[in-house]
Amino acid sequence: MALISVFTPVFVAVLCVVIVFFFRNYRRAESSSQLKPSTAAGESSSRPWVDEDLQDDTEISTKDSEDNDWVVAGTEDLPHVPYTPPRYSEEETLERSQQFYKLLNQRRSVRFISPEPVPREVIENVILAAGTAPSGAHTEPWTFVVVADAETKHKIREIVEQEEEVNYKQRMGDKWVHDLRRLRTNWVKEYLDTAPYLILIFKQTYGILPNGKKKTHYYNEISVSISCGLLLAALQNVGLVTVTSTPLNCGPQLRVLLRRPVNEKLLMLLPVGYPAPDATVPDLTRKDLSDIMVFV
Amino acid sequence: MALISVFTPVFVAVLCVVIVFFFRNYRRAESSSQLKPSTAAGESSSRPWVDEDLQDDTEISTKDSEDNDWVVAGTEDLPHVPYTPPRYSEEETLERSQQFYKLLNQRRSVRFISPEPVPREVIENVILAAGTAPSGAHTEPWTFVVVADAETKHKIREIVEQEEEVNYKQRMGDKWVHDLRRLRTNWVKEYLDTAPYLILIFKQTYGILPNGKKKTHYYNEISVSISCGLLLAALQNVGLVTVTSTPLNCGPQLRVLLRRPVNEKLLMLLPVGYPAPDATVPDLTRKDLSDIMVFV
Repeated sequence: MALISVFTPVFVAVLCVVIVFFFRNYRRAESSSQLKPSTAAGESSSRPWVDEDLQDDTEISTKDSEDNDWVVAGTEDLPHVPYTPPRYSEEETLERSQQFYKLLNQRRSVRFISPEPVPREVIENVILAAGTAPSGAHTEPWTFVVVADAETKHKIREIVEQEEEVNYKQRMGDKWVHDLRRLRTNWVKEYLDTAPYLILIFKQTYGILPNGKKKTHYYNEISVSISCGLLLAALQNVGLVTVTSTPLNCGPQLRVLLRRPVNEKLLMLLPVGYPAPDATVPDLTRKDLSDIMVFV
Repeated sequence: MALISVFTPVFVAVLCVVIVFFFRNYRRAESSSQLKPSTAAGESSSRPWVDEDLQDDTEISTKDSEDNDWVVAGTEDLPHVPYTPPRYSEEETLERSQQFYKLLNQRRSVRFISPEPVPREVIENVILAAGTAPSGAHTEPWTFVVVADAETKHKIREIVEQEEEVNYKQRMGDKWVHDLRRLRTNWVKEYLDTAPYLILIFKQTYGILPNGKKKTHYYNEISVSISCGLLLAALQNVGLVTVTSTPLNCGPQLRVLLRRPVNEKLLMLLPVGYPAPDATVPDLTRKDLSDIMVFV
């Protein structure tokens, strides 16, 4: 009896540790399954470190391991067809590479957008161009919400400015309160009303299979960002301007406002139109080739 | 005495729980500081949820709050200059938007790359084009390592294939062992030897200020991915092909091989060249406009 009462504390101690550990693992499984709905919680233990490298939680399934060559995954059952893109002479190739650089180098982020109308067909074409981006396992995990309706644009502005004001006033430390005085801008974003179109780009973090199961869209953030790159190039090519913005904390509100499903998350908001006649941009420069390219 | 011996188990229980909790928090702080070198571990408590939304740990500092309008941050001290990009007629605009979509829609991920040489100046121009991408606070957080050296290309192939083989053989569950039989590909990536150039795109997760302090590059993954989008468009424009790949687990080895600093992480590897005469691609289609665009 005395023996037992002596050991009781030890038993209790072991019991507690066991309980806490179960609790921890349960919590982990819970949170990880939110991030990668299509994968069993058990897999979270064998995450390849690459996820931390790419810092994209949509890739944390080991199933993703063969996905790194994007063209293969998901297309293994498709027949292959010959591919013969246009071929240019060396002179043409060089010339085209120079012209394209010249075109893109004229692009600037512009916050002063003219209200003058832009043909809807042009917007449709630039979005079609953006939709040609590669994506992990060819999931095409993007939704481009084009807002032309003045009332909806204003609601978006209200949501964004409200959050921005909170960002400025509450989420900043003393350092920011100081730096803010030097900022040319504040939380007022007039272009959200004036731009003829607002393009809100949502990433689909997972898809729904015919059987109703969730299917994680690997590399969805990288894929959609690449698509945004094509969109920016397409806009520049037709003389339209935008400013790349990622509204903080507005995602859920804007998703609800635009009636997007829960698997879609706002990645970027692009106001699109012609530049205002008096548009200005900060007089900044870009890095030299030697600063961005290393030749081996 | 009897009273104490009765309560001893309770004391031990409380003690265990307390210990385990301290252990957990210590571990958390440790791992979070690895992810955001430039920010104090303490800040991790005040992460705005947007970080989880964007799934990019480089943004988890609240200092980032004003960064959402990319053009502003970091440029507040710069004078502003007028911006007047080329303006096209409505007909031209429409025509250009159609032609650009047609050009990009011909792009396919190609794994059969011809060894025939490509002028270095063309590669320099497409990288210059990629370097025009917008970036959070205009940090331009990208490094394009262009590998033309045959020996280095082969070392890269060895590293990638070795990891790929491990991915296939060890990191896959039974389901994969089964699916693998259906895959046309395996871990052999011949194009890493045959392509005249391998472009390895590194994201700079943070920069070093003149005073030696680390400066987090917010949105660096999104910024570099957008830059990759411009690069893909530039390559397509000159008739070159590539395949978007994100080699799993090879980042650190390739970073060391190419002598890149610790703040740079491999985001993508693009073999670049002309398509092989017998190049084929999976016969896949793209979503319709109505599947990727919502008009409000």
